[in-house]
Amino acid sequence: MASEYRLRRRVQFYETDAAGIVHFSWFFRYMEEAEHALWREAGLSIHAADGEFGFPRVSTSFDFHRALRFEQEFDIHIRVTAITRKSIQYSCVLSDGDTRIAAGSVTVVCVPRKGPMASVEIPTEIRSRLQVAPGPQA
Amino acid sequence: MASEYRLRRRVQFYETDAAGIVHFSWFFRYMEEAEHALWREAGLSIHAADGEFGFPRVSTSFDFHRALRFEQEFDIHIRVTAITRKSIQYSCVLSDGDTRIAAGSVTVVCVPRKGPMASVEIPTEIRSRLQVAPGPQA
Amino acid sequence: MASEYRLRRRVQFYETDAAGIVHFSWFFRYMEEAEHALWREAGLSIHAADGEFGFPRVSTSFDFHRALRFEQEFDIHIRVTAITRKSIQYSCVLSDGDTRIAAGSVTVVCVPRKGPMASVEIPTEIRSRLQVAPGPQA
Amino acid sequence: MASEYRLRRRVQFYETDAAGIVHFSWFFRYMEEAEHALWREAGLSIHAADGEFGFPRVSTSFDFHRALRFEQEFDIHIRVTAITRKSIQYSCVLSDGDTRIAAGSVTVVCVPRKGPMASVEIPTEIRSRLQVAPGPQA
Repeated sequence: MASEYRLRRRVQFYETDAAGIVHFSWFFRYMEEAEHALWREAGLSIHAADGEFGFPRVSTSFDFHRALRFEQEFDIHIRVTAITRKSIQYSCVLSDGDTRIAAGSVTVVCVPRKGPMASVEIPTEIRSRLQVAPGPQA
Repeated sequence: MASEYRLRRRVQFYETDAAGIVHFSWFFRYMEEAEHALWREAGLSIHAADGEFGFPRVSTSFDFHRALRFEQEFDIHIRVTAITRKSIQYSCVLSDGDTRIAAGSVTVVCVPRKGPMASVEIPTEIRSRLQVAPGPQA
Repeated sequence: MASEYRLRRRVQFYETDAAGIVHFSWFFRYMEEAEHALWREAGLSIHAADGEFGFPRVSTSFDFHRALRFEQEFDIHIRVTAITRKSIQYSCVLSDGDTRIAAGSVTVVCVPRKGPMASVEIPTEIRSRLQVAPGPQA
Repeated sequence: MASEYRLRRRVQFYETDAAGIVHFSWFFRYMEEAEHALWREAGLSIHAADGEFGFPRVSTSFDFHRALRFEQEFDIHIRVTAITRKSIQYSCVLSDGDTRIAAGSVTVVCVPRKGPMASVEIPTEIRSRLQVAPGPQA
């Protein structure tokens, strides 16, 4: 079972923009990298080749405290903050040592990959491998 | 002066992911495209070649209601919802006819492009060309 | 029937990198945008929702002559330069007025979307709508 | 001194497209990741915060042999194949065990970061840290 995951990452050149810093859209991708690594840690794939379910995002946000620059290393720390019958909520902090860079959150729902895109119950084999992380829930 | 902008856009193939829909990180880029078009409408560039100021994002969010698929056309409607001495706040709705696809918001601050990245007052020549859009502020 | 397509395009901020110019990976996406627009011009979609065939790239290249900068407008001109039983070859020029910015090429093959990814004959309903453009073939 | 570099990498979800495979534009970014890692191995940064020189790409190509899918791991092996007074040429192979996935090349030139974008001699402190890799040059 997994409830949180920490990833060390380096800024790639193609992630920067003409302001000389990482484009803000990339923070959402960083958060997703950590989410998918958390799933692998739990023995799962969020998009298995033969999987029946997908996990589209229904809402997400980020607050940016510091810029990230080319080749800078940083940590991505993602935590499961809530699980309901049909949804999973994560919070995520990007930091470099004691410096907080950004904090985000994302809520995903379970949908069948075939047919209409309406949320359904998370299958037990997935639900049983993920749990809410201890600590503050926001 | 400009306070809102509406852009018609088509989904490009490289914006889709293996779930067959536009990756959620792209919605933030769509919102940014409309923001920068609003600035051009106001006779401004948000990152002029010789500009002294930049407008990094301090917070942003999106709620996703419908998926977007390859070659689908949609509208991006961005509105200025607040302007303070040092910041500008926008809200943005993506839709296709009467169907709401997603709704987002972003707050940016004014910073000098040289020196430390701390927010400063928005210069008058920029401030005088942007205004809060009429209607609901959220 | 379509054999070439010309698209006018503006550089988006998220396409630039910390060197202040469009990241070179984007030129391949620009070429693809024009390719897919050429298909639409021919009444086709290169990845229709219910399509049986896909068109993966087997080789591609670009020569870069000038940099592209934020908000710069430019033209993408793509031409079909060869069609064989199983493949289509395009060449593409990016320019701004009389200034050549870059020139690329790409070769795609037809594969079934289900089953092993091996090239097959291009279906007649597609083949009949595309033709080699007049003029130099390279 | 460095002449080649090998990197192990996993496909991220946002790198895939609606065809279920990595979008071809990403292979150029993978090659760049390895190039920049090679520079770090040599004690260099290709875009140092206070650097005077940049290394824009003048030509690049890729041949694609196999598709890459979500979460697949693969190797990127880049080699310096030629160095002239003003340019560096690399070749790059992506593979997974004995399976060749793709092969690319890229040529970059040295330019001053201020002033007109015309190629100049590679500074000695950079030139002295890079060398052509032994083995086939193409």
